[in-house]
Parts: sequence; structure tokens; C-alpha cells
Amino acid sequence: MTNSGFSGGAFSDEAFLQDFATMSSHGATKAGGVDREACTPADKENRQWMSHVFARATGNPAQFDAIANQFSTIEFVPGAPYVLLGSHLDSQPMAGRFDGAYGVLAGAYAAARVRAAAEAGDITPKFNLAVVNWFNEEGSRFAPSMMGSSVAINKLGLDEALESTDFYGTTVREAFTETGYPGTSSLPEIASYAEIHNEQGKNLEQAGAQIGLVTATWGARKFRVVVRGEQGHTGSTLMEDRHDALFGASIVIAQARRIVDKFPGQPLQISVSQMEVKPNSPVTIAREVIFNVDIRCPHAEVLDQAEQHLETVIAEAADEARVEIDRTLTHSWNQNDYSPAGCALAREVAEELGYSHREVMTVAGHDSTNMKDEVPTVMLFVPSVDGISHNEAELTLADDCLAGLDVFTGVVARLVAGALH
Amino acid sequence: MTNSGFSGGAFSDEAFLQDFATMSSHGATKAGGVDREACTPADKENRQWMSHVFARATGNPAQFDAIANQFSTIEFVPGAPYVLLGSHLDSQPMAGRFDGAYGVLAGAYAAARVRAAAEAGDITPKFNLAVVNWFNEEGSRFAPSMMGSSVAINKLGLDEALESTDFYGTTVREAFTETGYPGTSSLPEIASYAEIHNEQGKNLEQAGAQIGLVTATWGARKFRVVVRGEQGHTGSTLMEDRHDALFGASIVIAQARRIVDKFPGQPLQISVSQMEVKPNSPVTIAREVIFNVDIRCPHAEVLDQAEQHLETVIAEAADEARVEIDRTLTHSWNQNDYSPAGCALAREVAEELGYSHREVMTVAGHDSTNMKDEVPTVMLFVPSVDGISHNEAELTLADDCLAGLDVFTGVVARLVAGALH
Repeated sequence: MTNSGFSGGAFSDEAFLQDFATMSSHGATKAGGVDREACTPADKENRQWMSHVFARATGNPAQFDAIANQFSTIEFVPGAPYVLLGSHLDSQPMAGRFDGAYGVLAGAYAAARVRAAAEAGDITPKFNLAVVNWFNEEGSRFAPSMMGSSVAINKLGLDEALESTDFYGTTVREAFTETGYPGTSSLPEIASYAEIHNEQGKNLEQAGAQIGLVTATWGARKFRVVVRGEQGHTGSTLMEDRHDALFGASIVIAQARRIVDKFPGQPLQISVSQMEVKPNSPVTIAREVIFNVDIRCPHAEVLDQAEQHLETVIAEAADEARVEIDRTLTHSWNQNDYSPAGCALAREVAEELGYSHREVMTVAGHDSTNMKDEVPTVMLFVPSVDGISHNEAELTLADDCLAGLDVFTGVVARLVAGALH
Repeated sequence: MTNSGFSGGAFSDEAFLQDFATMSSHGATKAGGVDREACTPADKENRQWMSHVFARATGNPAQFDAIANQFSTIEFVPGAPYVLLGSHLDSQPMAGRFDGAYGVLAGAYAAARVRAAAEAGDITPKFNLAVVNWFNEEGSRFAPSMMGSSVAINKLGLDEALESTDFYGTTVREAFTETGYPGTSSLPEIASYAEIHNEQGKNLEQAGAQIGLVTATWGARKFRVVVRGEQGHTGSTLMEDRHDALFGASIVIAQARRIVDKFPGQPLQISVSQMEVKPNSPVTIAREVIFNVDIRCPHAEVLDQAEQHLETVIAEAADEARVEIDRTLTHSWNQNDYSPAGCALAREVAEELGYSHREVMTVAGHDSTNMKDEVPTVMLFVPSVDGISHNEAELTLADDCLAGLDVFTGVVARLVAGALH
């Protein structure tokens, strides 16, 4: 399977698949997925196991920074900055075993293979090499997502991250006192960043390509919507006296989804997936409902129009349910390119190694979305069967996993040797 | 204020209002309500305080049965069955201070006043007297509602009640090990039952009547609806590939409410107030949503038609959202009369004492709804300002509270003297 020269020793393809199976047993669900939200026992078990993998791959122990990013370094050139490889080990609840975890393990294997090549004199490093497991990329338990990489690039303050609370009011800081995750190390100076991830979409599968060269991320608008009504008895409060926050919220959620139908043929995706109902009692009309709205599209003008439709939907729902509805923009970005040079480098490697490839955009956010704003970055995808993601049935075929690892290793070797600089 | 002869000593109207204020400080919320769900620290504090009130009122200590019904007895006639008075001290979250608690305190005061009258020789008891605080009437934390009275009349098994879990998976049995609520006593043999409660509606207020004579309970159909979809990534899962359980649920919730509009002029109330979203993550499409539907009307044929509309709504939502939706009937009853003799007795007392009164139906369920199926029962209402209920702003004016206590005491004196037998 390995078309590149980098396949050596204990970090063989067979070992990769074996390690991947072991990793997938941590927090395994009955239907073949994993449930490893940040700071859960399954996440802890997996991180402890990955510390050993990192140490074997780099020859140096795993280190931890204050937001619990877990990393390990290889020094080829004293004082030189580092090529950083990584992704995330945390998962959504009841999710797939590839999302993030594949990229961290591929990072460790690529590091080990490039280290072996350097030690054998097959490449001449200009930069050092490190591999990272970013803390809490998923953001399902503690918002925001991409927490570890956001703190690393100072996009998010450490204290703000540590004060983020889960549904039950536990802060990251409190969770850390139980898990013992954080450390006092700092990530080294970074020269470039590379990440490989499953696509979570169907473009590669439909094109019959093994490698995705990520060119850009879709634009997105994310909102927090708060519907305020009044508590009342579900039996005895007359319909005309009601200010039912859940009725108002339901109108918005149903109608927000239908905004998509106004843009036939456009790549537009609108979702509501998280909500909180207060007091959430069987006989008390809800006084408050809080939910997210997530709008994604590559085209800024479509995003803007969809947002206007959302405003209309909200006004109509507030009117019909006689409630107040506030909408706050929590995330907003337009289509955002990855470096063309990074994409060209990845294409060069894929072609040289003889793997089919195509350019794709990413709809999902990744830690590389953060890193690409700071340093030269390469982002690769491997195919997802049926595009299934955030679901226990998520699957990338073994051949595709290994092809991805091979191209990724080739890219990393070029980066260590000085590419993109 | 007291028009009856039963006003004696330490159980004066002034003392009642003072005790009511003290009781309302237990679990008090900032906006003047209480938050005393079953087995919470505030509920425990209030029950402990009520044990002292019961003991002062009856001269005997409070006792507890296996489902934590809290009661105290007065024996006038050795071996005779008991007139039981009561309601519930637990509340909905962020609710009003009158709902249930008013009736328990009124029960204790009525018992004390009738005891004093009996000791003074003003009445000749044929039955004994007991006052009860039924466990978990609200059912907001542990379903079903009316738990204590349902176990007392063997409508609900004790073990089933003890195994009921709250949102976090704690059972009643586990909660009891922390609160120490249950005891080994049994309620005595019951001859008749009387309860007084705030109306939670506007009929009395609109009619300018101080006393409500409850003639019947509305019919109801309650459902548990489960929407099953598939998890997916909110960003990358194409709209046409989605099976979004929250989208499906929102359509049902919005449309279920609108069924009411098909029955103009009918007293029909439809509510959804409790829901659970799985996995409830900001970036994962919901795989499952569970919610209640609560339909209430005095007319069985309207309930049946509304249920048919609900079935249509569910089928349409399942089709549009491409999800499966199951509907289970959890409670069903048609309009259900209180004993006309009990209502006539209450009217007689109200007229004799000179209080304005009118017949009303109850939309909400009460412990008396259970008891009336077992023994002769009298149910009284006092007015609710603006009909506000299950809301911190719930209010019954002091004059109305005292008028209710006075009529209630008169009814209890008649029951103890042998009325309805």
C-alpha cells in the first residue's frame, strides 16, 4: 500500500490499522462508533494511550499545555521552528471513530516515519517536527469548538476557555481538576501545519478520488436564539393567555429549515440541533427556550439572504406565539481559502505517489481552519462512505486510511525539508 | 373574616397568614414564587416545618408512609374511619406559592379548628380526622404526577413509583435515601376526603365569586411522542440526506398547537412543554427527540377529533422530515364528575356562611381527582388573580384565602359530624 518510501519498522501499515482498532475500543459504542466527549473517562483513557503512541513515535514523552493540548516533539535542527501535525481525539456523543482520531494517529505515524527517514539520511530536515492532539475540537460538551487550537493562536483567551461550562454547569477548569489534563509546557514555535481528516461529505466518494486537497472552508453564520415567554399551567391557562416559548421556538426551527427551499440548487445547509427548555416540565408552559441556528454556504450573498429570511421567520414566530425572540450572531465567516501553495504541495505528492485526488472544500470546521490563518497549512481529506459523519456508522475504508497516511507522510517530509518556506 | 364559628385560638386568621408567609419563604424565588420540586432541599425544609404545624394542629406527631405521604391524625371516635384533608407541598420549578401548599396549610388549620370545636362540644364527631401532604403531586421531577395519592389508592404500585427516574436518572428510591422521607405508617381508613386549592383559571375571578364548587374535571389525552432520525454533521450532511429528529419534532409541536384553531369557541387546550433532544450538540443533527403532548377539553368528542388531527400532523411531519414518529397514549380520561352530594354540601356551607360561590370544572388534575373515585369527596377552589398558575406571579388574595379556609372548615365540620354518609 505504501507508495512512498516512508513505511518503516514498527510504524507499518499493519501496525497503523492495529493501533486504530485499539484506539477505537476506547469509548466504543455498541453500533461501532465512539462516545468520547472532552474530559469524559473515555477521552481520558484514549489520551493516556495516545501519550504512549506519541512517545514511541517521537522518542520523547507527551507534553501538555495549559488548555490540555497534548503534543510531542522531535528535534532535528536545534533552535529551528516546528512542522506541527495533528487533529483531535475528542468526539461528538455517539459519534464515529474516524473523525479527528484518524488524523491524530496519522500524525503520530507520519512523524515516526519521517523521523526514521531523517535518521536514515533519506531526507535532510530544515525544521523540527511535532504532533498534537488539540483539546476539545468538537465543542459539544464545552463551547466553543476548536477550543485548544483557538487558545494556541490567541483567538480565545485561556481564562475564557477554562470558564466555559457544560450543560450541568461544570467548567472546563473543574473538569480538569478531575482529569488532570493540563500541563505547564508550551507548544514550540510553529513553521507550518498539516492535518488529515475524513471528509464527512460525499464529494471524494462520488468522484472516486482517494485524496481530497482542501482549498477552502465554506462560509457560515451561527446564531444563539433565545425565546422568552411566560410559565403557565398546560391545562388551565387559556390558549389566548399563553406566551409559550416552546411553541415560538418550534415555529422558528421548522421554518428555518424551510428557508433552504427558497434557494434551489444552492449549496445551503441550515440546522438547529441543540436546545434547552425551561422549566421542561410536563405540565408547565415553557418560559424560555434557547437554541442554535447554524447556516452554511460557500456564497456570502446567499448567507446574507438566508439570514434575512431567518429574521422574517423569527418575527412571524414571535407574533404568532406572542413571545420575545432575540437572535445573537455567535460565529460569522465567509468562504475562507487555504493556502494555494499548500494545496499545490499536496497535489504534487499525491500525483508523485500515484493516488487519485481532487480539490474539495470543507463544510465542517477543523483545527486547521485556525492554523491556516497563522502559518502555511496543508489540509488533506480521505473519503467518508456515504458522507456519514457525527454518527456511529461513520466509515473510511482501510485502503483509504492508508493512502491518506502515505500522502500525508510525503507532505510532512517535504515540509520538514523546507517546503512552503 | 371568619363567618363560621371555627376560628379559635392559635389557629386564627392572622396566624394562618403568618404561617403562609413563613411557608412561602421555603424555596422562595426572587420574583415572589417558590421552587420546591419533590425531594429537593427546599421541599425537605418545608415538609420538616409542616410536621411541626401538623403536630400543633392535631396534637399528634406527623407520620409517613412508604411513598412519603406526610400525615397526622386526630382520634375523636375510637375505631371510626377518618375524614382526610389535604393537598401537596411540592411545586413545579419556578412556580407559585399557593398551588397545593395553600391547601395543606388550610387542611391543618381546618383540622385544628374542628378539633377545638369538638373539644368545646360544639360538634359531635362521628368520624375521626386526618390531614395529609401528598407526595409529589406535580410530577415535574418524577413522573407520574399525583404519585402519593395514586399509590395510596393502589392506582400505582409502590415499587413502580419508587423506580421512577428524574432527568438525571436518579430514582425516587435513591432520592428518598438522601431525604429520609418515607416511614412505616399507613394512612388510616378513609371515610371521606376534602381538598381546597387555588383555581389556576379565571372563572371565579370573572364571576366575582370567592368560592369555587368543583363539579367535574375536564377530559384529557396525554401522549409521549418519540421522533427517531439519524445523527449527522450539521455542516456537511446534505439536506437531502438528513433525517433530522428535531426538525420533525418542531413541525409536530407547531402544528399540534394550531389544531386548536380548528375548533373555534371550544374549550380546547393543547400543549407541548417537555422535550429531550439527543445528542443535543451544536454540530450534530438530532437522532431522537422525545416530547409530551397534552390535550384537554371537557368534551370527549372534541378530544377524539383533536387526537385524529394530531395523527395527521404527525404523519405529515414524519413525511416532511423523513423521520419515524411514534405516539403513545400515556393518560386518557373523559370528563369525570365529582360527587354531586359533595358539591351540594359545599354550596350549603358557602351559602350559610355568606360567601359568593359558583360551580366550576377543574382543568388541572388534583389529588382529589384520585380520591373522588374512592370515597365521598368535596373539592373547593379559591380565585387565582388573572388565572396565573405554575408561575412565580401566581396570587390568591388574602381575603380569598381566608374565605376559603372558613368554608373549608365548615365543610370539614359537617364531614366529621357525619355528612355524606
